[in-house]
Amino acid sequence: MKTVLEVCAAAKRAAPVLARTPTSRKNAALEQMALALDAGHDRVLEANAQDLDNARAQAVAGALLDRLTVTPERLEGISAALRELIALTDPVGQVVRGFTLPNGLQIRQVRVPLGVIAMVYEGRPNVTVDAAGLALKSGNACVLRGSSTAIASNTALAALLREALTTQDLPPDLVSLVPDTSRQSVKELGRARGLVDLLIPRGGAGLIQAVVGDSQVPVVETGVGNCHVYVDDAADLDKAHAIVRNAKVHRPSVCNAAETLLVHAGVADTFLPAIAETLRADGVALVGDAEAQRLAGADPATEEDWDTEYLDLRLAVRVVDSLEQALAHIAEHGTLHTEAIVTEDRAVARRFVSEVDAAAVMVNASTRFTDGGEFGFGAEIGISTQKLHARGPMGLAELTTTKYVVEGDGQVRG
Amino acid sequence: MKTVLEVCAAAKRAAPVLARTPTSRKNAALEQMALALDAGHDRVLEANAQDLDNARAQAVAGALLDRLTVTPERLEGISAALRELIALTDPVGQVVRGFTLPNGLQIRQVRVPLGVIAMVYEGRPNVTVDAAGLALKSGNACVLRGSSTAIASNTALAALLREALTTQDLPPDLVSLVPDTSRQSVKELGRARGLVDLLIPRGGAGLIQAVVGDSQVPVVETGVGNCHVYVDDAADLDKAHAIVRNAKVHRPSVCNAAETLLVHAGVADTFLPAIAETLRADGVALVGDAEAQRLAGADPATEEDWDTEYLDLRLAVRVVDSLEQALAHIAEHGTLHTEAIVTEDRAVARRFVSEVDAAAVMVNASTRFTDGGEFGFGAEIGISTQKLHARGPMGLAELTTTKYVVEGDGQVRG
Repeated sequence: MKTVLEVCAAAKRAAPVLARTPTSRKNAALEQMALALDAGHDRVLEANAQDLDNARAQAVAGALLDRLTVTPERLEGISAALRELIALTDPVGQVVRGFTLPNGLQIRQVRVPLGVIAMVYEGRPNVTVDAAGLALKSGNACVLRGSSTAIASNTALAALLREALTTQDLPPDLVSLVPDTSRQSVKELGRARGLVDLLIPRGGAGLIQAVVGDSQVPVVETGVGNCHVYVDDAADLDKAHAIVRNAKVHRPSVCNAAETLLVHAGVADTFLPAIAETLRADGVALVGDAEAQRLAGADPATEEDWDTEYLDLRLAVRVVDSLEQALAHIAEHGTLHTEAIVTEDRAVARRFVSEVDAAAVMVNASTRFTDGGEFGFGAEIGISTQKLHARGPMGLAELTTTKYVVEGDGQVRG
Repeated sequence: MKTVLEVCAAAKRAAPVLARTPTSRKNAALEQMALALDAGHDRVLEANAQDLDNARAQAVAGALLDRLTVTPERLEGISAALRELIALTDPVGQVVRGFTLPNGLQIRQVRVPLGVIAMVYEGRPNVTVDAAGLALKSGNACVLRGSSTAIASNTALAALLREALTTQDLPPDLVSLVPDTSRQSVKELGRARGLVDLLIPRGGAGLIQAVVGDSQVPVVETGVGNCHVYVDDAADLDKAHAIVRNAKVHRPSVCNAAETLLVHAGVADTFLPAIAETLRADGVALVGDAEAQRLAGADPATEEDWDTEYLDLRLAVRVVDSLEQALAHIAEHGTLHTEAIVTEDRAVARRFVSEVDAAAVMVNASTRFTDGGEFGFGAEIGISTQKLHARGPMGLAELTTTKYVVEGDGQVRG
């Protein structure tokens, strides 16, 4: 079994070729990858069946088992996603800024690939293909460290992708799976200074903390979203109703779903009983402070509830006396992901937008819109909740860096 | 003595006020800071005399002592640099991108401050003021951890800057000096997750490695430059002569000075004897491979020489057989800072630009141009040699992050 460092070193050696590969050939490789998944259909489903058997034997069930499952339809979706990348603009070579200095030096800041992107993720085989496709299109080699539960599926998928690369005379090590799925392998990825240019953990808070706490390579944190919706006393309550419902119920298992509802005391009497009824009909369990218990029939919330990303049909509810109290609650409990306000008061909206510290701030819109696809980026590798390098949905451009190209005619500094 | 975490926590509490402070008031604070330095002239010089006495008692001499020294003229320069920041465009509030989705949602990606920027640097009191000024203008609180050799000077400077902030009703903790200058305090800064949004080490390779190797907060590495000039066989040798001389001699102690000269064998016979004579007259010591010893009278180079950032009047010289060999040498020994080629061959220049991995690639220009001032950024906090977040000279914009502001009319996701 190859060590983590060997895998990373091979990816690093392969990367420069891709950095110079024109878009047309990268697109051809994406098409070949999609074709390989179509043709290798049975191989993937067999491997996945093996993972599913093992998972069931370990009593994995529910959402985890569902995420691990690859069906023929899902596999079609996975190769369709690869084909969608073909149509996206290649960020490599874009000139971000350009100017000419008084001395005649011409400066261009040009987008170039990062080099090697490593990704640590949980038992979702589709991430293997998504990440490989996004890395390829943005000119980067990728090192993929999926979970042990998906190792057979990931191995089958990676093998198909690697075979597809060779049909385009590209080195297969551009897509490398880490065979070692022990905890130690995450640690080793984080120590691969000089080999890994960016490490992206994608998963729950525990995974992210494990990666960040022990990494010496640059990391972009993704995905933990303890998102709030604040319904102001100047809210249009119909909009508030639709937004709160959508933010909580549309897809509760994802990071941009709402976890806490804050309602201004001025509208709580009207708004809370109505929204509670709707949410309860949707199967949402409510916990809350004394007022929410009284008005929405919520169970008592503990201090922990305000900090919990449920990722489930569960919502914490608090009644606040003022915008200030809502802002203070969000500052204390938010995870810098997405925060929403519902209000018709322009000054209140401006203040919320200006004071809330988050990747995305929504005014009269659902938190669910923080998404690369929704933003029109076409695809995303994750949603960054950190401030450095990339913040919010990370598309292809966020997988690149830049280089200053300075062209002169013999200029020296005086 | 306040602990490092107490200093960081106070800065974090102060930061939001500055994020909402309009440019005019930040500029007024910069002016007050400059006035405070002018008025506090004697206090600073006295404190500096104390640092210099201590340094001499510890046998500090040469360039280190020079950098530590504050003269009346230098102090004028320091406050002039603060005033120059007033004229620069405030990056906060700039809309980086903006678009409207088909569903009517209006999205703006807006520049916002990072929050708290911590800086670890060596015995240069001017950095205390430069960093405080850049942080203030970009809307960030700063935590400054200078070296023990400059502690009296830094304390006097920080006290004056903090007094100036209060004249504008801004919290003094926006500029905070870490009183503890032990090695442990650097470690503690790196552990201040949630309090420090960006940690910038500015100094030699040892300092940078110490910060990076042990940090859990986001770091941008700056400053180590093992820069090469490659003189191609299609070079205009007059341009090459001027560029090599400028890159080595103009200011050898800085990171964008050249440390290694690579010369194509096709022009080595002509070029090397001439440039060697010039450089020797400038006081430059040469070390090199066998050909460089023969043609330039260089002393033998060791393997270590190719990896050494001399920051001194010393140059390593190697004769290469091809562009490929030059590229391979740079890939092996470069530090991703600045690399230069001298050539009149368009195809060679294009290949060098495309294949060299560095923050800046120069064609027919001195390496010395990689500089925020030269690039027209007005000021820089350092030169990033990493790929994430910022690459190359870091001006005010690189001290910010962005926030997506999404405005709607009740939109929900379908």
